[in-house]
Amino acid sequence: MVHFDDIVAAAERIEGKARLTPLLEAPLLNQKLGCRVLVKPECLQLTGSFKFRGAYNRIAQLNPEELSRGVVAYSTGNHAQGVAAAAKMMGTSAIIVVPKDTPAIKQNNTRAWGAELAFYERDSEDRVAVAQAIADEHEAIIVPPFDDPHVIAGQGTIGLEIMAQAAMMDAEPDMVVIPAGGGGLTAGIATAIKEKLPNTQIIMAEPKSYDDTKRSMAAGVRVANDLGPDHESTFCDALTAPIPGELTFPINQKLVSDVVTLSDETVCQGIYRGFIDFKLTLEPSGAIALAALVSGAISDAGTDIQDKTIVVVCSGGNVEPSVYADALIRGAKQA
Amino acid sequence: MVHFDDIVAAAERIEGKARLTPLLEAPLLNQKLGCRVLVKPECLQLTGSFKFRGAYNRIAQLNPEELSRGVVAYSTGNHAQGVAAAAKMMGTSAIIVVPKDTPAIKQNNTRAWGAELAFYERDSEDRVAVAQAIADEHEAIIVPPFDDPHVIAGQGTIGLEIMAQAAMMDAEPDMVVIPAGGGGLTAGIATAIKEKLPNTQIIMAEPKSYDDTKRSMAAGVRVANDLGPDHESTFCDALTAPIPGELTFPINQKLVSDVVTLSDETVCQGIYRGFIDFKLTLEPSGAIALAALVSGAISDAGTDIQDKTIVVVCSGGNVEPSVYADALIRGAKQA
Repeated sequence: MVHFDDIVAAAERIEGKARLTPLLEAPLLNQKLGCRVLVKPECLQLTGSFKFRGAYNRIAQLNPEELSRGVVAYSTGNHAQGVAAAAKMMGTSAIIVVPKDTPAIKQNNTRAWGAELAFYERDSEDRVAVAQAIADEHEAIIVPPFDDPHVIAGQGTIGLEIMAQAAMMDAEPDMVVIPAGGGGLTAGIATAIKEKLPNTQIIMAEPKSYDDTKRSMAAGVRVANDLGPDHESTFCDALTAPIPGELTFPINQKLVSDVVTLSDETVCQGIYRGFIDFKLTLEPSGAIALAALVSGAISDAGTDIQDKTIVVVCSGGNVEPSVYADALIRGAKQA
Repeated sequence: MVHFDDIVAAAERIEGKARLTPLLEAPLLNQKLGCRVLVKPECLQLTGSFKFRGAYNRIAQLNPEELSRGVVAYSTGNHAQGVAAAAKMMGTSAIIVVPKDTPAIKQNNTRAWGAELAFYERDSEDRVAVAQAIADEHEAIIVPPFDDPHVIAGQGTIGLEIMAQAAMMDAEPDMVVIPAGGGGLTAGIATAIKEKLPNTQIIMAEPKSYDDTKRSMAAGVRVANDLGPDHESTFCDALTAPIPGELTFPINQKLVSDVVTLSDETVCQGIYRGFIDFKLTLEPSGAIALAALVSGAISDAGTDIQDKTIVVVCSGGNVEPSVYADALIRGAKQA
């Protein structure tokens, strides 16, 4: 389990290493939606996504002997950069296992942080097994992308910041909307927020074609994505974990009010509003929570947003220019 | 004249009204360029550009009788939004004179802040005369876009923030690079910085086709842009003031080390790096200083950047999605 105190300890650990990202507000968007929207832009975090927080919190707790053996991680791209940067700061080496189709920007940045890359086939290979084999060979420590209490606690520091920053803006969140991949970001933030604000609703947003979290919540047990031959892909490449985490799922099951699923076309609305109202570069995965709010998906699912104070976690901004440009134009057309 | 104390007073006036924008750093860009780059992202300022600072500092000093008569401004778009928001906060009305070809986003946002728009023809009408006629009719106060001591002092608050934030990052700017339109942003920032750090170089960046500042500096007197029939336009729509200001020019003449001019194609490099390294939406005018640095224009002009600490003011982010998408792709191709 992950406790509130673990998150407080993580916040002390990452202070001065991670960035204290601001909490942003766009008065004209509030006016348009009839609620108060506060955006937590983790695209401004070191390495362009929230992943640095959890990675640093894990690696900073390794002992010198463990650090001398290096770390291994598997990732769809953002965790790769987070682990690479954290490893560099802690003076250890990192090998990152990424899908062959990882966006070039994520590959290049991971290497620029000093990490070595190893590749796997997204559809045919088990990335955990590939990483485990490399870790065994090097006697290295695996830093999991979400299913690890230290990683979850690191991501939870966002929840502490949200509460402190909202209070400074005379706001108390009625709702926090969070992108859903493996569930580590939500588990951390929800654990932090619910401890102090038990009535705050936690909403997760995930791609329609990777709706394992929604189906798992409905089933009451972890259910994997059905990746059969007719399966649609998504440009939310950071939200394609195969199944909710063993650790994250029971936490989220207890603390999350609802899960909404969005098509890629709808996600473009979040990218557009990130651009127009907040001047932020959001990758598709990073824009999905904002899209869930502005598209009406949350209210359509029965959660009232009128006059509420709603925190939206925009989790990352690592995206290829061509993908972004196309999504931005599609989003603008829907506005 | 504008004095350091006027800027300190402006900072007290705008506190809690304007946003304290962060000072951002991208380690991988530092690594690439061989210098330390600190970006001041005024695209994150209220209304999406720095203009709110000066407008609020001017309007907040009007007396109740003046406020009852309303304000009038002329603007290429960003000052319009800044004045509209400041007028709304101060409980006065605003009429904004903008060119007919002002980007829709700037028009819509200005109206959303409660201001009324009046239009003029960029090439055939004198915007100052149009605004003056409206002001006379309503007995309203004109808030000039740059040639006003209170407006200059308001923009200068960015200089105070840069110094304080850089100090917290153990940095002292060797150089500050600033977009050049009418020169108000530079005059304010340079007045603040040079008071405390007299050896810091101030560099202005302006569009090649609106190089009035460069030519004025060379001539030693204010020279207007030559807008003859063969004149090239620029997508840096916020930097098309006809001539340096009467107040701003002598300040900048004294405090500025160099002016570099950039083609629109080169400005795209700034938009791309804002996107890739800082996750910021920069409008062309807002990206020109970053472009001046990353394109090599500053070093090509003879100013050494190696191992220097360089603050880049990214002044705004109000841009149409289609213009941005195109510029981003053009910038990526040059990377």
